[in-house]
Amino acid sequence: MNRPLIIGVMGGGLAGAKEMEDAYTLGTLVAKQAWVLLNGGRDTGVMTASARGASDQGGLTIGILPGSTPKEASEYIRIPIVTGLGNARNCINVLSSDVVVACPGGMGTLSEIALALKCGKPVILLNYEKDKRFEPFQHTGHLFYASSPHEVIAHVQKFISRDE
Amino acid sequence: MNRPLIIGVMGGGLAGAKEMEDAYTLGTLVAKQAWVLLNGGRDTGVMTASARGASDQGGLTIGILPGSTPKEASEYIRIPIVTGLGNARNCINVLSSDVVVACPGGMGTLSEIALALKCGKPVILLNYEKDKRFEPFQHTGHLFYASSPHEVIAHVQKFISRDE
Amino acid sequence: MNRPLIIGVMGGGLAGAKEMEDAYTLGTLVAKQAWVLLNGGRDTGVMTASARGASDQGGLTIGILPGSTPKEASEYIRIPIVTGLGNARNCINVLSSDVVVACPGGMGTLSEIALALKCGKPVILLNYEKDKRFEPFQHTGHLFYASSPHEVIAHVQKFISRDE
Amino acid sequence: MNRPLIIGVMGGGLAGAKEMEDAYTLGTLVAKQAWVLLNGGRDTGVMTASARGASDQGGLTIGILPGSTPKEASEYIRIPIVTGLGNARNCINVLSSDVVVACPGGMGTLSEIALALKCGKPVILLNYEKDKRFEPFQHTGHLFYASSPHEVIAHVQKFISRDE
Repeated sequence: MNRPLIIGVMGGGLAGAKEMEDAYTLGTLVAKQAWVLLNGGRDTGVMTASARGASDQGGLTIGILPGSTPKEASEYIRIPIVTGLGNARNCINVLSSDVVVACPGGMGTLSEIALALKCGKPVILLNYEKDKRFEPFQHTGHLFYASSPHEVIAHVQKFISRDE
Repeated sequence: MNRPLIIGVMGGGLAGAKEMEDAYTLGTLVAKQAWVLLNGGRDTGVMTASARGASDQGGLTIGILPGSTPKEASEYIRIPIVTGLGNARNCINVLSSDVVVACPGGMGTLSEIALALKCGKPVILLNYEKDKRFEPFQHTGHLFYASSPHEVIAHVQKFISRDE
Repeated sequence: MNRPLIIGVMGGGLAGAKEMEDAYTLGTLVAKQAWVLLNGGRDTGVMTASARGASDQGGLTIGILPGSTPKEASEYIRIPIVTGLGNARNCINVLSSDVVVACPGGMGTLSEIALALKCGKPVILLNYEKDKRFEPFQHTGHLFYASSPHEVIAHVQKFISRDE
Repeated sequence: MNRPLIIGVMGGGLAGAKEMEDAYTLGTLVAKQAWVLLNGGRDTGVMTASARGASDQGGLTIGILPGSTPKEASEYIRIPIVTGLGNARNCINVLSSDVVVACPGGMGTLSEIALALKCGKPVILLNYEKDKRFEPFQHTGHLFYASSPHEVIAHVQKFISRDE
């Protein structure tokens, strides 16, 4: 593949200080790898924090927006994709990502994890509470738990080398 | 409201004998109440079982199909809605239902529960494993657990009387 | 096919008196054939007029709504399908219809005619201005012009007998 | 706006030599302006020609794919957005573009012009047959005809300066 890897970062619109910091760091690390950061694009929580991290390192940031105007995008999103689809855009977040990373979040994030696993995407959960429901996907090598942004990057690198 | 209540029944494409039986019974009970049954429409698992139950009682059944042809619909679906949206149609299942009932299922069903709660829909989980993540929605009166199809109907009736 | 035929009626949200009358009559004729009427569901123009016609004859009416609440539905829509997709729901209108009828309308209606022809659906244009762009589809038997609601019904009946 | 302008280029999957050449040239000119080229992403016709033009000049190319895998993307698409929505993705093409340019094409392209005008987007038709239906949008300054790729660029520049 001579396209850049696209890393989807999902997570809450409302996030605590630690989650915001982790999302920011994750964004910087994604950009330093010359990967593209993709998220839900809005100007809030994990979305804006991860986009800011990637943007601060000069990385490309893509935001898949639920509404019908680019005005709702975070200022750190370079390319707003305006879907007008509401929550149905969550499917696009997942399908467009080579790897899906989920930070702690609410029901939107949970729907994205579920859809990603259904679509067969590799999923990395960052400081996300363990869930028995996901165990089968750990066994098939689709789901991993990470406890730091650096560990996320290490997992992604393993995925890439495995696919080559 | 002088429209019939629309009950969305979500659940696995692959389902065991007990789940199939419960879904069938639930379909019959929905139809006996003169409510409309809505589901994912495909010819498999909880979808076809619940549609068959409603159909056997002369109830109206609506199937929100992921593909782009009505041919994938269960024969017990009276009105196939052909979306061509893949899993993004899960959002339509949820938004179009007055009440969402989830039977045991996989990641598709989990995504529908999550989207329904995000959208503020009342959700009833039938023989679905308890999940700590959903507790806040029990406290706000959006989520209920039921252990039989009859208990589901009783919950729906409470929702209706509450809204009147 | 032992499902009822679904007739999609497209047309302007803003419509003149003659268009409203034709849409109403078309709705009554669809219902008298025991066919299902499907449209964009909103409480305006050709949508509400055709739904009222079908409803007055006891016909089943399905409205594929662009927004995320059934409250925007015409009162003559029996089953509101709530998509939350904005104009992207136009594709569902088309895919879910066995035959697409277009009354005069604006750009939304034009997009639906174009999408219907792209998807290979039979399309009947009722008092719709001739368009050179559509000629190839007249030659392949996908597109017909009609000048009255009764003529629309006659065309649909020809389609059905052709497919049997 | 400190985001790059996004120019959507619509047009036929099947295109003649002249259309392919124009699409290629248009892509090069978009990239030379440091604008982003967005299209339907597939490996055919105006989509791949315009992407190749932009790519040859080092421009950023975004492809909004109808299917559910990036494999259907043209090799000249740098960022494939995988929607899984079929033709419903046409709405995203339009909503995500600051200006929509339509080259000659079939019903898909026509649906995109109609949707763009409905959404209030500026639309430039390149060597596209005149259409009486679009006249009102010429009067309101939303629709322009161009007879060369350079003329398209000149129109876009007028739009930008008008909005500043």
